[in-house]
Amino acid sequence: MTFKLSPLSPPRRLLLGPGPSDAPPEVLVAMSQPVLSHLDPAFLKIMDETMEALRVVFGTGNRMTLPISGAGSAGMEAAMVNPIEPGDRAIIGVVGHFGARMAEIARRCGAEVETIEPTWGQILDPADIRRSLQKKKAKLVGVVHVETSTGVIQPLEEISRIVHEHGALFIVDTVASLGGIAVNADALKIDICYSGSQKCLSAPPGLAPLTVSETGMAALRARKSAVRSWYLDLTLLDKYWGTDRVYHHTAPVSMIYALREALRLTLDEGLEARYKRHMDAHRALAAGMQKLGLEFLVAPELRAPMVNAVKVPSGVDANAVKKRLLEEDGIEIAGGFGPLAGKIWRIGLMGYSARLENVERLLGAMKRIMGR
Amino acid sequence: MTFKLSPLSPPRRLLLGPGPSDAPPEVLVAMSQPVLSHLDPAFLKIMDETMEALRVVFGTGNRMTLPISGAGSAGMEAAMVNPIEPGDRAIIGVVGHFGARMAEIARRCGAEVETIEPTWGQILDPADIRRSLQKKKAKLVGVVHVETSTGVIQPLEEISRIVHEHGALFIVDTVASLGGIAVNADALKIDICYSGSQKCLSAPPGLAPLTVSETGMAALRARKSAVRSWYLDLTLLDKYWGTDRVYHHTAPVSMIYALREALRLTLDEGLEARYKRHMDAHRALAAGMQKLGLEFLVAPELRAPMVNAVKVPSGVDANAVKKRLLEEDGIEIAGGFGPLAGKIWRIGLMGYSARLENVERLLGAMKRIMGR
Repeated sequence: MTFKLSPLSPPRRLLLGPGPSDAPPEVLVAMSQPVLSHLDPAFLKIMDETMEALRVVFGTGNRMTLPISGAGSAGMEAAMVNPIEPGDRAIIGVVGHFGARMAEIARRCGAEVETIEPTWGQILDPADIRRSLQKKKAKLVGVVHVETSTGVIQPLEEISRIVHEHGALFIVDTVASLGGIAVNADALKIDICYSGSQKCLSAPPGLAPLTVSETGMAALRARKSAVRSWYLDLTLLDKYWGTDRVYHHTAPVSMIYALREALRLTLDEGLEARYKRHMDAHRALAAGMQKLGLEFLVAPELRAPMVNAVKVPSGVDANAVKKRLLEEDGIEIAGGFGPLAGKIWRIGLMGYSARLENVERLLGAMKRIMGR
Repeated sequence: MTFKLSPLSPPRRLLLGPGPSDAPPEVLVAMSQPVLSHLDPAFLKIMDETMEALRVVFGTGNRMTLPISGAGSAGMEAAMVNPIEPGDRAIIGVVGHFGARMAEIARRCGAEVETIEPTWGQILDPADIRRSLQKKKAKLVGVVHVETSTGVIQPLEEISRIVHEHGALFIVDTVASLGGIAVNADALKIDICYSGSQKCLSAPPGLAPLTVSETGMAALRARKSAVRSWYLDLTLLDKYWGTDRVYHHTAPVSMIYALREALRLTLDEGLEARYKRHMDAHRALAAGMQKLGLEFLVAPELRAPMVNAVKVPSGVDANAVKKRLLEEDGIEIAGGFGPLAGKIWRIGLMGYSARLENVERLLGAMKRIMGR
């Protein structure tokens, strides 16, 4: 055996892409704490604290509130594979890449999927969802709160009302929004709500916080067939995270340390103060972009503060600017997906990254690179 | 909002259960490095290094060699959901808890499952597998290399020969064995081989290294239906981890730092030296247990060095001893599962935990607690 590696030494970056965001020092220190067994009483207490803190951030009293052991997309898959039985009808709002992914996952779970698809960068019209529900009974309606591919906030109140009038489950992706704007899962009567650890919560990527309403749990208990995924089966996960403490899989202990610590910092800061910090950073970025003569993709009233989609001016090579920012300034931003590739930059102001000094650093670097 | 948490401060333990094992200091330091984006060129290089190091440890040249973003059980689910199409026949060897889990997952993937079930603590008879394959064509045969619930090593050579004579795929769980005894995926013609990060590799739990042979990849490409899991779809993961670098899900960056660092230490130590260290620790434990008058569950020639199943003497409360070890000595060991609950302790000597000083510390504490 001759293959050897040198010690790990990742470069320093300022993460201003649409996730992951920079993890605060306290979270990085938590990751380096010695590993506990997944059944150690001291770890079970850390799990309980994590669940309780997640309830606060989700705005819920749901008992079933836990981090799924996987990326945000594992949370999405858990939110689809648990309620769907083969042949169930699922209505999915697609206003960008992640709505499209939700529809694809629902199909693989065996659902008959109808998508509602306005142009990317727009929002869903609740009337379209009502029409689809009236046409034929659906098991669930899935929408994305903040679409990471476009930076649009989807208003949820009216859709929730319509979904529940028609007896369907309301599934909401809050991967980009949780911790950056209010989610209020109970007030919005969300039945399954999931997120990711690495965006506005600022833990490293690898966990998907998820919460299920009592209506949602009743639907899971009423299934006629076994959930197709054993790993993501919420009734099995409930037995480990709940009072039974029956071993399911080995929890990602260090990741849960990090999430617990990120949640501790979130609670210490206070949710309202945290939302204001995200909005302040967004406003500073918007003002700076205007000075640079750059426009947003999304209308002001629909803009998510944590995902800023900025149009690439004609004649500018989107990738070249992105590359120079990374190489010359150590700043990471992202480009567009699919129909928006090369047409937008996506600038994330999430969690620990959402600070005015970071906005200023980015604006200064863009001004220099673009010669404006 | 009044709920607050104090800073994380987990107690110190010596992890001598059947996983997770203690992570070495270098791995804990790696976890605390700043997060990179999952598409940063510097991170893509870390991914490449991780894949290359995994190939060495798996004993394979398979291009498709990567860590699945989840627990070992996610690796198990990936190994089943990718090859199985509804109605396919799967033959699963069940010599303990994890074989039973594999059968359950295969069923949920839509397979017609036949289990081969000797008594727990025994091994599979290749003749039984041959009979099952002769009876009716099977898509795959799945076995567990080291059964974590009993500490048995399953010899694989003859089973592999029989499986391939009958044109089935050979799937092997090396969650407990990889890094502690030789796996040799290529020599054994294993088509899908998966493991966990937290056992003999001594990274924290949360990743499932997995490798797929060319025959295995051909079987995946020949599927008629989409893989039921989007999150675990290996053809999609291949596009991210392979040369295309197409975004799939956000990789658990810090966990991959840790695995890469654990693999660096493994390569620095050398595989043969590492296997010898596991065997030396096991032999010291076996000699010490004999002095204490305690017996092993498994016959000497079938014992896995990293999972030591020790019989609880009659009249001794298995849980009480386990609890005192944790509370008085900070040492974690585990009890038995299912039919072996209360009848055995399981002592893990895995990765960084597999050292003579740890064996001595455990033997001293057990002697004191049991008054022997």
